[in-house]
Amino acid sequence: MTTITFLTDFGLQDDFVGTCHGVIATIAPEARVIDVTHGVRPGHVLQGALVLANTLGYMPAGVHLAVVDPGVGSSRRALALRDQEGRLYVGPDNGLLLPAADRFGGVAEAHELANAEYSLQPVSRTFHGRDLFAPAAAHLAAGVALEDLGPPLDPAELVQLDLPQPEVGQNRIRAIAVVIDRFGNVALNFRREDLGDAELPAGARVEIACRSERFYAVSARTFADAPRGSLILYEDSYGNFALAVSRGSAAALLQIEEGAEILLDLAAR
Amino acid sequence: MTTITFLTDFGLQDDFVGTCHGVIATIAPEARVIDVTHGVRPGHVLQGALVLANTLGYMPAGVHLAVVDPGVGSSRRALALRDQEGRLYVGPDNGLLLPAADRFGGVAEAHELANAEYSLQPVSRTFHGRDLFAPAAAHLAAGVALEDLGPPLDPAELVQLDLPQPEVGQNRIRAIAVVIDRFGNVALNFRREDLGDAELPAGARVEIACRSERFYAVSARTFADAPRGSLILYEDSYGNFALAVSRGSAAALLQIEEGAEILLDLAAR
Amino acid sequence: MTTITFLTDFGLQDDFVGTCHGVIATIAPEARVIDVTHGVRPGHVLQGALVLANTLGYMPAGVHLAVVDPGVGSSRRALALRDQEGRLYVGPDNGLLLPAADRFGGVAEAHELANAEYSLQPVSRTFHGRDLFAPAAAHLAAGVALEDLGPPLDPAELVQLDLPQPEVGQNRIRAIAVVIDRFGNVALNFRREDLGDAELPAGARVEIACRSERFYAVSARTFADAPRGSLILYEDSYGNFALAVSRGSAAALLQIEEGAEILLDLAAR
Repeated sequence: MTTITFLTDFGLQDDFVGTCHGVIATIAPEARVIDVTHGVRPGHVLQGALVLANTLGYMPAGVHLAVVDPGVGSSRRALALRDQEGRLYVGPDNGLLLPAADRFGGVAEAHELANAEYSLQPVSRTFHGRDLFAPAAAHLAAGVALEDLGPPLDPAELVQLDLPQPEVGQNRIRAIAVVIDRFGNVALNFRREDLGDAELPAGARVEIACRSERFYAVSARTFADAPRGSLILYEDSYGNFALAVSRGSAAALLQIEEGAEILLDLAAR
Repeated sequence: MTTITFLTDFGLQDDFVGTCHGVIATIAPEARVIDVTHGVRPGHVLQGALVLANTLGYMPAGVHLAVVDPGVGSSRRALALRDQEGRLYVGPDNGLLLPAADRFGGVAEAHELANAEYSLQPVSRTFHGRDLFAPAAAHLAAGVALEDLGPPLDPAELVQLDLPQPEVGQNRIRAIAVVIDRFGNVALNFRREDLGDAELPAGARVEIACRSERFYAVSARTFADAPRGSLILYEDSYGNFALAVSRGSAAALLQIEEGAEILLDLAAR
Repeated sequence: MTTITFLTDFGLQDDFVGTCHGVIATIAPEARVIDVTHGVRPGHVLQGALVLANTLGYMPAGVHLAVVDPGVGSSRRALALRDQEGRLYVGPDNGLLLPAADRFGGVAEAHELANAEYSLQPVSRTFHGRDLFAPAAAHLAAGVALEDLGPPLDPAELVQLDLPQPEVGQNRIRAIAVVIDRFGNVALNFRREDLGDAELPAGARVEIACRSERFYAVSARTFADAPRGSLILYEDSYGNFALAVSRGSAAALLQIEEGAEILLDLAAR
């Protein structure tokens, strides 16, 4: 039994996800589908790429279908990839798939979804998830070879995302809020290895500046280490530094959205 | 393995959907359930019927369970149907199932869910999804014959929905917003074949009147054909004309909800 | 095929639920997962416990995984339980699991999740659903013995929830709104058997006081018994008394949230 994991920005209010499930079940009745999430903010390719990369290691190896595709109907290409460890990916050529594939050695082989035999005909101009991507993923799960989906592409020519990099100075970090979850926890774009010489022991006080306001956070290992309502800086379960409020919402306290810039001063006293 | 597709207005916040899944898995452990959507607006039978009809062709043939049932507990009947192509349907007798069945030749056979052997006892007065409809669908999937569920009904006597029809004049169309999706795309109740003599080439300018305000849309084939933020009129992936804003929300721009009336002037210059 | 039922407050916006599904599928590829709900209000252990207890009887017996865990990362223990009828439970030691187990005879055997062999290593401090609870449930579904997960605990020493009890007087009841669903129906914390001598025939008028305002409800068996827009008091599909507005929202009418106190006068005239 092959597993197809499925990540989109389709949401669950409409039938988009269910319709793709129907298409997959029709083509590959034996495949199992795992919904990673369909709650990526509409059109936010970066968020989708980061969530896909963060979660892929927890999924059974198989076919990994991802659709966050604001360019649907334009000339952007449709892709099927294989990484160095053999996982297969299906999605648009807008950078969505590459950070995940990079966690598994990078792209070994890329093909354009051009073979009409493996899509629903006619392919609509606005719902490639249903007509192009889900069918390709299902055919791969059912045993179709990657190279049968269309002509090969040079992996070096795939569209790359511009991943925001933190600026790390002497005890100061200029970061970006990259993912905000339902609890209001704010994942930032830096990890332990980005800190360089800066130290951040548990209990340290950190000054946070955003939207020209200042806040103070405490470095902590988990929510329960801090009093209810206090702001903490911690390493989240995917290894990113993040801001949280114990039993509250850091996003609400800071009044920020994804993409916001946050300055951290680790030497605050 | 039989497939049960499942569409409701239950939402995913509560346990309604999960409880029905449990009931189905208990009665028919081998059945696979595909959730079409549970995001139909509460009690909006018309929206549910249109979504069911639009999506059914993408689902494996099997048992098609749909519950949008504002009359639960009243004297409205509970139904199991077979269409001319052999698909089975389970749901309330309020018109929800018929537009879908009409896509597959219409209702060949109808039965009332009256056999207590195939429901959970006692049947509650407020959750027929759990006690009546899900069990009936599961028993059908497990091999129970349609006629064993209850006495036959005359298909001609089933409750019909009043489907809103567009009024098409000389280059003018009076339409209704029938489904608004999470992206704010607004599906209207007319299709290419309703246009008659009116022409609508790509690039044509269309005047839109709603709520005594005027907007201008451009006829386009896909979102990517129009500049970001501009209003477009296009045929959506189910063949309905629809309004969208490229990388934005047409529903927000027009400030409308489902059921709103929209006048289109195709001869605007 | 073993079934794992899965209930959390994770929501479906983020990847938390999907990631746990991936973990389970990796460890126990043959298990089937039924999502009961992931819409419990964040951190509301009481609501999660009531929903789990209400719904469990509709689920196939198997492994019942539940995570509403505001104390993640603190010293609260992680549990696996067996009830008197053989159902298995996995979740935090904060009272979440016990009302459900009590419906099936109570806890027969309890173990602490302490065996590192059956968790993902390292266990993060903030996502025990992924690293600790989902793996334990999956290993149980795959045939690992309950006692292999960790040392036994005395069932009498498990953390108990303080379940709010109604105060029932001569025709007066002081109740709490315990669960509000997407339709705005408000489940209260009393059942028929709590009424004592008080009578509540269909059609009786009931005075409702909340937030120092007064409303009048009619005792009814189902939504359809009352005119559109009127407030009714009825026994919901899980046997709890509840308030609803026919084709409307009782929560919106009363302007209340979960936890609100409601006084009912059954002798109103």
